[in-house]
Amino acid sequence: MSKIIIYDTTLRDGAQTEGISFSVDDKLRITQRLDQLGVDYVEGGWPGANPKDIEFFKRIKKIKLTHARITAFGSTRHRAQTAESDPNLQLLLAADVPGITLFGKSWDLHVSKVLEISLEENLELIYDSLNYLVSKVDEVIYDAEHFFDGYKANPEYAIKTLKAAESAKAKYLVLCDTNGGTLPDEIGQIIDHVKREISTPLGIHTHNDAGLAVASSLVAIKHGVQHIHGTINGYGERCGNANLCVVIPNIKLKLKLDCISDEQLTQLTEISWFVSDLANLRHLPRQPYVGESAFAHKGGVHVSAVQKVARSYEHTQPELVGNKRKVLISDQSGQGAIVYKAKEYGLDLTKNTPEVRKLLSEVKQRELDGFQFEGAEGSFELMVKKAKGLHKKLFELIGFRVIVERREHDQEALAEATIKIRTPWGVEQTAADGDGPVDALNCALRKALEKFYPSIKEVKLIDYKVRIINEHEGTGAKTRVLLESEDEENSWSTVGVSTNIIEASWQALVDSIEYKLLKQEMQQELK
Amino acid sequence: MSKIIIYDTTLRDGAQTEGISFSVDDKLRITQRLDQLGVDYVEGGWPGANPKDIEFFKRIKKIKLTHARITAFGSTRHRAQTAESDPNLQLLLAADVPGITLFGKSWDLHVSKVLEISLEENLELIYDSLNYLVSKVDEVIYDAEHFFDGYKANPEYAIKTLKAAESAKAKYLVLCDTNGGTLPDEIGQIIDHVKREISTPLGIHTHNDAGLAVASSLVAIKHGVQHIHGTINGYGERCGNANLCVVIPNIKLKLKLDCISDEQLTQLTEISWFVSDLANLRHLPRQPYVGESAFAHKGGVHVSAVQKVARSYEHTQPELVGNKRKVLISDQSGQGAIVYKAKEYGLDLTKNTPEVRKLLSEVKQRELDGFQFEGAEGSFELMVKKAKGLHKKLFELIGFRVIVERREHDQEALAEATIKIRTPWGVEQTAADGDGPVDALNCALRKALEKFYPSIKEVKLIDYKVRIINEHEGTGAKTRVLLESEDEENSWSTVGVSTNIIEASWQALVDSIEYKLLKQEMQQELK
Repeated sequence: MSKIIIYDTTLRDGAQTEGISFSVDDKLRITQRLDQLGVDYVEGGWPGANPKDIEFFKRIKKIKLTHARITAFGSTRHRAQTAESDPNLQLLLAADVPGITLFGKSWDLHVSKVLEISLEENLELIYDSLNYLVSKVDEVIYDAEHFFDGYKANPEYAIKTLKAAESAKAKYLVLCDTNGGTLPDEIGQIIDHVKREISTPLGIHTHNDAGLAVASSLVAIKHGVQHIHGTINGYGERCGNANLCVVIPNIKLKLKLDCISDEQLTQLTEISWFVSDLANLRHLPRQPYVGESAFAHKGGVHVSAVQKVARSYEHTQPELVGNKRKVLISDQSGQGAIVYKAKEYGLDLTKNTPEVRKLLSEVKQRELDGFQFEGAEGSFELMVKKAKGLHKKLFELIGFRVIVERREHDQEALAEATIKIRTPWGVEQTAADGDGPVDALNCALRKALEKFYPSIKEVKLIDYKVRIINEHEGTGAKTRVLLESEDEENSWSTVGVSTNIIEASWQALVDSIEYKLLKQEMQQELK
Repeated sequence: MSKIIIYDTTLRDGAQTEGISFSVDDKLRITQRLDQLGVDYVEGGWPGANPKDIEFFKRIKKIKLTHARITAFGSTRHRAQTAESDPNLQLLLAADVPGITLFGKSWDLHVSKVLEISLEENLELIYDSLNYLVSKVDEVIYDAEHFFDGYKANPEYAIKTLKAAESAKAKYLVLCDTNGGTLPDEIGQIIDHVKREISTPLGIHTHNDAGLAVASSLVAIKHGVQHIHGTINGYGERCGNANLCVVIPNIKLKLKLDCISDEQLTQLTEISWFVSDLANLRHLPRQPYVGESAFAHKGGVHVSAVQKVARSYEHTQPELVGNKRKVLISDQSGQGAIVYKAKEYGLDLTKNTPEVRKLLSEVKQRELDGFQFEGAEGSFELMVKKAKGLHKKLFELIGFRVIVERREHDQEALAEATIKIRTPWGVEQTAADGDGPVDALNCALRKALEKFYPSIKEVKLIDYKVRIINEHEGTGAKTRVLLESEDEENSWSTVGVSTNIIEASWQALVDSIEYKLLKQEMQQELK
């Protein structure tokens, strides 16, 4: 089989995700990354539905792309218009891009109940609109909306709609499982039937409402379809579209078919993070191939087996998609995991030594107390460095006090922290206000330390998570605080646990600052 | 085909998810919900790997289940032990539950490189261990770990391992795609071959590393497998296991096969939320069937089409799985929802009255500010009652002060709250200590009010949850606190939001107490 064509619709169908709202700049940046990734088409938007998309098409023309073709998306003409007079078709042409993707109705139910026109008239809408556009632009792709539902309801009519598009000379006919409810089996059977009637190359566009969008895309390929629609991270309305971060590696690594290059495949994890950052959605850790947990090993048995033979618990090599193996530290870890982690930190540890045994029992004890090092590797790294004797106490807490006070019923509550620490240069006592008690404590600690350790100014707290561990104890429950910090080079996370949320936050704050200072010191020693 | 058997491994394989750590209480509560859902087996844990699991098996015996059978999970005997002397097999028997699921190696690579024993010896391990257990417990299930990878590497040997388990009379032989990398096609073909060699009923256990776990489970069913493993929300190591929240509705609604009842299917969305709450993981909005966005309609076209003909953009009815359609609320439908809710509280409200419009805009404003009333109906009910003028101010806060202090570095932090409130009987000022700042505030508020309203003594805080809303603001982020309270009759939940966690907790505490007092008053008036 020749090369599989990848058609990305992150910017149009993906932007329908609840909570996503891409700016024009976001869309331009994503387009460039998709181009580098080697996708063949980037569907930029729907100029008839969205003024932002009109601006996108204007600006994208000034950007040089190496491979991807931009397409504009729209619907067949309105019944009251001719193709030439239809304002939406004119907007599509005004986008002035190499390709147009036009959707039409395949399902008789939609024609009569939603469009409220006759079946015959719908065929004319499809033919006219495509025929007109084909004479004006390089490539016109036809999206057969609800094709599979339409076929199941009225196969003869669904095929007729494709024939109308074929006779208008659309380049591809894309079969859409718009509601995402068709089983892969049915997809395969229906494609086989379509291929007996239609000779135009086919495409597939699936949704994930039954958790089967990826499987259906692969089945379509097995049945001879070469043009595959999807989105980065599977974004899309309801349960999303076929996830290209899963479909592409499956095509390359499982079906062993040609599509993007091996080199481009290694960018996949990075682009997945990039798009989720711009979408302002959490990157899903359990996402196949590109998720943070996709190659994470927790149980002691798995960790030691993976160290012996990687493929014993890994279906593919993480590096191929730009991801990496992750060994999790938890109460299920063994000595092997600790040695493995220490090596990552540039430290040599040997199994069955007292220091490794001590570290392991410390991890287990602290996890029993409610700590969790999986999400707080910074705190774990600090523990390992302390065990290796690398850690000098840079400051010591003498005491702190946090006051939250609301003096009058109509006033906002105020938070103030005072802090007293011992440094090598003497005792430092100071105070600061904050948005809340933890923020105040953070500000006071930094104020006290920055004059001795100016690099602390580089540290930004970027994430703060609170989990109540034994929730059923009510307000007397234990609190686990996870802090994520970053400087110009990297990010690290630290943890604190206490029945007192202030105390727990304090522990995580101190670990974060100590992590930064220790890293800096080790780097200076290397120089 | 007769009934499909559902085997849930949320508590064992699901607990391997990065970030999940179930307490014994959590596991007991989940087991009861799974039993109500109608799953056939609940795999409770691995007594050989985890002391917490031993406690689970002890306590679950005291709980009456209506349908589900509990199983304990473990591995074949160690090579240096006999089945009788093997400590892990003894721990499995000590669990004293109706079923044991034992895993063994099918892949020659694992036998020689991970176990480091001969292929022949592995067959003995499988046979001996199963044969011994079969004589001791009702049901023994064999998990053929890495079966598909093993089959692809050495089909003859993989079949031999199944034959060893068959001759030991295991009840089911479960074929595992442990690394999750096998394509559904291959799964089907391999099952067909196994069925020619093996007559024991087969099971399927898939992982989602290639995004195909659900599809592979369905293919297995098509090829005659009746015993299906999976987890709630697809939790599990790396990319997770087959998601039962997707597999079960696909079996019922797409394949039209018998498994749990229609009535039980309507509990699916609720149990999915329940488990994600206990796992303390965010519920995935795009999760098929049970996700918050699964039936959400954003585009204007879709919304109006759905209102004309629901199935035009919905592959199934959300009510069947206990989910609901979500449409961007217009003022009209929003008012309808408020009137509907008020009726539940025994209050009459009419659409298009100023009070309903005011309530609606208040709900919208507060949700914009970060409140969430779905999980805090107590606070919403209070809002409605206030709007109806039913609420008398029973007390008014003048001010509070919370101090958290650690005086010496080796001392525990202390929390103290002082509070000043106005009651109909005068100003009350008091103070109390607590485990942390919120606990101290709770104790002080009760102390101040109990002498006027002794019924407050009946109120117990049973749950306290903290969520950071805009996490990327670091410690200056907004905090949402959810409190669950109960008295002898029922439970209610309340919410508070602020950048200051103490202030947010205070709001939720006050709502909780006001809810109680107002309910009491309305009951007295009825008498």
